[in-house]
Amino acid sequence: MRKIEHIGIAVKNLEVSNKVFEKLFGAPAYKFEAVESEGVTTSFFMNGPNKIELLAATNPESPIAKFLEKKGEGIHHIAFDVEDIVLEIARLKKEGFIVLNEIPKKGADNKLVVFLHPKSTNGVLIELCQEIK
Amino acid sequence: MRKIEHIGIAVKNLEVSNKVFEKLFGAPAYKFEAVESEGVTTSFFMNGPNKIELLAATNPESPIAKFLEKKGEGIHHIAFDVEDIVLEIARLKKEGFIVLNEIPKKGADNKLVVFLHPKSTNGVLIELCQEIK
Repeated sequence: MRKIEHIGIAVKNLEVSNKVFEKLFGAPAYKFEAVESEGVTTSFFMNGPNKIELLAATNPESPIAKFLEKKGEGIHHIAFDVEDIVLEIARLKKEGFIVLNEIPKKGADNKLVVFLHPKSTNGVLIELCQEIK
Repeated sequence: MRKIEHIGIAVKNLEVSNKVFEKLFGAPAYKFEAVESEGVTTSFFMNGPNKIELLAATNPESPIAKFLEKKGEGIHHIAFDVEDIVLEIARLKKEGFIVLNEIPKKGADNKLVVFLHPKSTNGVLIELCQEIK
């Protein structure tokens, strides 16, 4: 794990929240992307070596819709940048972490992603992501 | 705001959680520090340009004790590194953000810190921190 690639924040209304984070960073989102398989629309803000990803649900079955219902708006996950996601999954499984999808799936921002179950990581939903080259 | 300085994670038992994050990063915490004024003990893990701070409560009045009671273990705050905290507070106040302590206070890890109210930042507790030189 080389750095925090991004922090994912669940929001109710992407347009409203884009304005909040634009004010916070003094610069607008540089990218917007829908991930149909996850039922989300996203926006990305750059912050030095890191990014902030805002996630809004596009349907009531989306994990983000369920998160908002249960916990309200707020931090949804931390994503760490990894060089080799397959090696990293193997290492973490050996260490006892619960991997939610053993086969990396295509996420937003041109990444292969895997999630670790918060049960094994102090209540924190952790994503590993590797850039697709 | 130049980067994510650290992510603060509220934990029940620092010793137990240190082991979890040591396994996650493949390296132990590099620093332990108590902040008496906040009623917390902390540990820090390095992750490239970023850090993870684990926070455990040392008394029931600690903000971390209250957080754990209400929400359980998980991500507590995001801290952004700023060059000039006083200028940044002034800028963010003008933009409508609610600053919790207008006069920066001494936090862990040799930093001056200020918090923004989650009400003005999509439910995210945001810390600004400037290194004390």
